[in-house]
Amino acid sequence: MTDPAFEAAYQAARESLSQGGIPIGAALARGGEVIAVGHNERVQHGDPIAHGEMSALRAAGRQRSYRDTVLYTTLAPCAMCTGTIIQFKIPHVVVGEAQTFAGEFELLRSRGVVVEVLDDGRCVDMMRQFQQEHPQLWAEDIAE
Amino acid sequence: MTDPAFEAAYQAARESLSQGGIPIGAALARGGEVIAVGHNERVQHGDPIAHGEMSALRAAGRQRSYRDTVLYTTLAPCAMCTGTIIQFKIPHVVVGEAQTFAGEFELLRSRGVVVEVLDDGRCVDMMRQFQQEHPQLWAEDIAE
Repeated sequence: MTDPAFEAAYQAARESLSQGGIPIGAALARGGEVIAVGHNERVQHGDPIAHGEMSALRAAGRQRSYRDTVLYTTLAPCAMCTGTIIQFKIPHVVVGEAQTFAGEFELLRSRGVVVEVLDDGRCVDMMRQFQQEHPQLWAEDIAE
Repeated sequence: MTDPAFEAAYQAARESLSQGGIPIGAALARGGEVIAVGHNERVQHGDPIAHGEMSALRAAGRQRSYRDTVLYTTLAPCAMCTGTIIQFKIPHVVVGEAQTFAGEFELLRSRGVVVEVLDDGRCVDMMRQFQQEHPQLWAEDIAE
């Protein structure tokens, strides 16, 4: 059975896709409870820093500490989101897939972050189709 | 004479301070022209990802490329802002000071980013006073 927090991240990605946005979602959880969910908002709000992970952290608002949290994301975190995970001292990241984007696992692990990859086929299919249908938008989102 | 883009970053930090916020500002410039300015908005909007650099990049909106831009910031970039500079492929960062916060210069430079430090006394004084007067808020902003 899928972890409910990961499912929340996946549903956020689907929601973004249904809005014409980039289908990447994330959720922040503490003690098994989802405290915030977010998705990429580049298209929806013209916001280049609103990757899924960033939107979830923004939605969580000001937190005293993230040391007891887990961040779930449908796709491997880019350098921005990786730097944010490091800065916020989030100890554990659960990633849907890293096949369509490699992310920065080495940097995360070098700073002590536990990275767990689910290899979720739904996430792979969703991103692969998106990248094929919207290559320019995808390139823009990762600044390529 | 101070670079006008750095001056814009400094004035944004002053503006944040006058609003009761954290006094860190940033500006994004292209070809000597300031295209966006921002400041920390943790206090103003309860937004933990809105560091000065992030706010300036959000204000700049969707850009096709950042390879011809320079990011100015009053304080050494943290891991979040460093990861963002790397991800966005911003080649050059001008930093007001790194005395009150060391930032992630080594990581930036390891990814080929040119880091220039101005050692601006106004920035040092502003941050030092802020850190002394608001130690908890400062600790929260850097997740300590």
